[in-house]
Amino acid sequence: MQQVVLAARPIGEPKLSDFRLESRPMPTPGPGQLLIRTVWLSLDPYMRGRMDEGKSYAAAVAIGMPMEGGCVGEVITSNNPLFAVGDFVENRFGWRSHTLSDGKGVRKLDADIAPLSTAIGVLGMPGFTAYIGLHTHGMPQKGETIVVGAATGAVGSLVGQLAKIQGLRTVGVAGGKEKCDYALKVLGFDACLDHRSTADAAALSSKIGAECPNGVDIYFENTGGKTFDAVLPLINVHGRIPLCGMISLYNSGAPPAEPADRFSNFPKVWRTLLVNRINVRGFIITDHYDQFPKFIDDVAPLIQKGKILYKESITIGLEKAPQAFIQLLRGENFGKQLVSVSEDPTRY
Amino acid sequence: MQQVVLAARPIGEPKLSDFRLESRPMPTPGPGQLLIRTVWLSLDPYMRGRMDEGKSYAAAVAIGMPMEGGCVGEVITSNNPLFAVGDFVENRFGWRSHTLSDGKGVRKLDADIAPLSTAIGVLGMPGFTAYIGLHTHGMPQKGETIVVGAATGAVGSLVGQLAKIQGLRTVGVAGGKEKCDYALKVLGFDACLDHRSTADAAALSSKIGAECPNGVDIYFENTGGKTFDAVLPLINVHGRIPLCGMISLYNSGAPPAEPADRFSNFPKVWRTLLVNRINVRGFIITDHYDQFPKFIDDVAPLIQKGKILYKESITIGLEKAPQAFIQLLRGENFGKQLVSVSEDPTRY
Repeated sequence: MQQVVLAARPIGEPKLSDFRLESRPMPTPGPGQLLIRTVWLSLDPYMRGRMDEGKSYAAAVAIGMPMEGGCVGEVITSNNPLFAVGDFVENRFGWRSHTLSDGKGVRKLDADIAPLSTAIGVLGMPGFTAYIGLHTHGMPQKGETIVVGAATGAVGSLVGQLAKIQGLRTVGVAGGKEKCDYALKVLGFDACLDHRSTADAAALSSKIGAECPNGVDIYFENTGGKTFDAVLPLINVHGRIPLCGMISLYNSGAPPAEPADRFSNFPKVWRTLLVNRINVRGFIITDHYDQFPKFIDDVAPLIQKGKILYKESITIGLEKAPQAFIQLLRGENFGKQLVSVSEDPTRY
Repeated sequence: MQQVVLAARPIGEPKLSDFRLESRPMPTPGPGQLLIRTVWLSLDPYMRGRMDEGKSYAAAVAIGMPMEGGCVGEVITSNNPLFAVGDFVENRFGWRSHTLSDGKGVRKLDADIAPLSTAIGVLGMPGFTAYIGLHTHGMPQKGETIVVGAATGAVGSLVGQLAKIQGLRTVGVAGGKEKCDYALKVLGFDACLDHRSTADAAALSSKIGAECPNGVDIYFENTGGKTFDAVLPLINVHGRIPLCGMISLYNSGAPPAEPADRFSNFPKVWRTLLVNRINVRGFIITDHYDQFPKFIDDVAPLIQKGKILYKESITIGLEKAPQAFIQLLRGENFGKQLVSVSEDPTRY
């Protein structure tokens, strides 16, 4: 079997040398255990956080240990009566070709509902993040306006489409003309602004503002940086900011010693939150899994009917995962980033 | 009649020359109008915001116009069948000795419920801010820990007492030993830390942390600056920050041009909000007046029974209001700041 381990903690942007591909003997399942062969590995921005030391909402990956990650796999040996050989399953098996499991927390997949890869994409953690962020934390009302960062990404693309179905004006922000065209023509955003071709936050703010004649009621925040700076002044009274990630900051280096970013240094931001009664709601998707079945019930039929579209960016081979991940953090992917770990990528 | 008008927009801390006391002819009430003699004027930190140009949640006071402010007054002439001479009333009559009103929005007071001055203090806007901020935005649960900035102020002192009644551990922050002693011995806070005698945010954070063995679930934010910097790293997962003011920032000068405080400059703060799923809830009390009757029903009996205590700091004479206001912004008041505008301060 093969696995990709964390070789070194990155400083800023990860390098290929921060990862290491290892071969190991194939494990043998004991009583009650399954041997699972990975078919699809999901690459997601949150994984950058796991590479750093320090307090976060989940423990850091230890040096020398396999990188974490959601996967779709196939059961190839089963000593567990709840799983049969040939079952397709989903869980956080990590960046590895094979894994042992006692079946705990492992979700069986029904390939008739949707393609297997969606279980780690639009019908998996990223899609669920979009659903909870929009509905639970964004509290959208018909006729309101939402701005979505990383509009063509695994999360943003579903936020935009769900918001549109609910009758919101949807304005995306994405990096590059190709992504903006896709957001407009395929995902159905009302507008999409290219932050790459816009000089600074003030210019981006003007462009977004021109597309939001009634202001911004919800800013779905998953990028941070220039986009956040641009949107904040546009947010209406009683606006909401669901906050689930800040891709632009993930590579910004080790966090400085506490308390480094002094609130006292940026009265303007907090004054804006106060004056406009803005509700900033940090959330982590793992807190919400009680609502996962409802999410599947709501969104799977929309996918089956073609009312929700999704795009996948597929890299073939586990050994290519580090490079694909580095590109994901640079925004060089387009759509949900997957790694095909199977010997036969066309089969699944 | 006399009034205090805004003579100039302050840069940073207001100076006495930014205000001007004027004498005017006594106005004569027309049909349907009342003439009201001010008895008590409330001084509150929010008034600093009204002295600046620019977008806020309420319009700026124009140069040459009377300063705004909540007052208790006595009706001395009435051409309005809903009000009788001798009625005590409350509304935003401003920094003036007499005012004309058509009675709209004017609240009649019952001196049997509580002393008249409480209608602009613990049973008025500041108390209502404490009540809504704690209950609606803080969402307190028995056994949780709350940190309250400006713990002996008009808002903070009620937040602490209401939270204590609800079974929370209450930790205050105040400026000076006298205020801390009062918070502990009179208001019943479990602990109170003196930010004045503490060198910096890191040291204050250690002191607050030592008094919060289970972390901080709610930070009632009304000061900003060093206290906010100190508390942020202590806030628990799913913590709440009701945000109703930032006294320490009010004198920080004219706000810089948009968007000046770049989010991209302080990844650490936003990372903390995200990782700990913190809910920052800016609020303005004027949005919540539908709940005012419930507030009075809940809190007035607690005051009558002596379960809620309050402290008033009284300055005598309208002409002294500017100096008292400057001291309020410096934290040199102690308890709710009132100006007695009556010729006979002992009467009310």
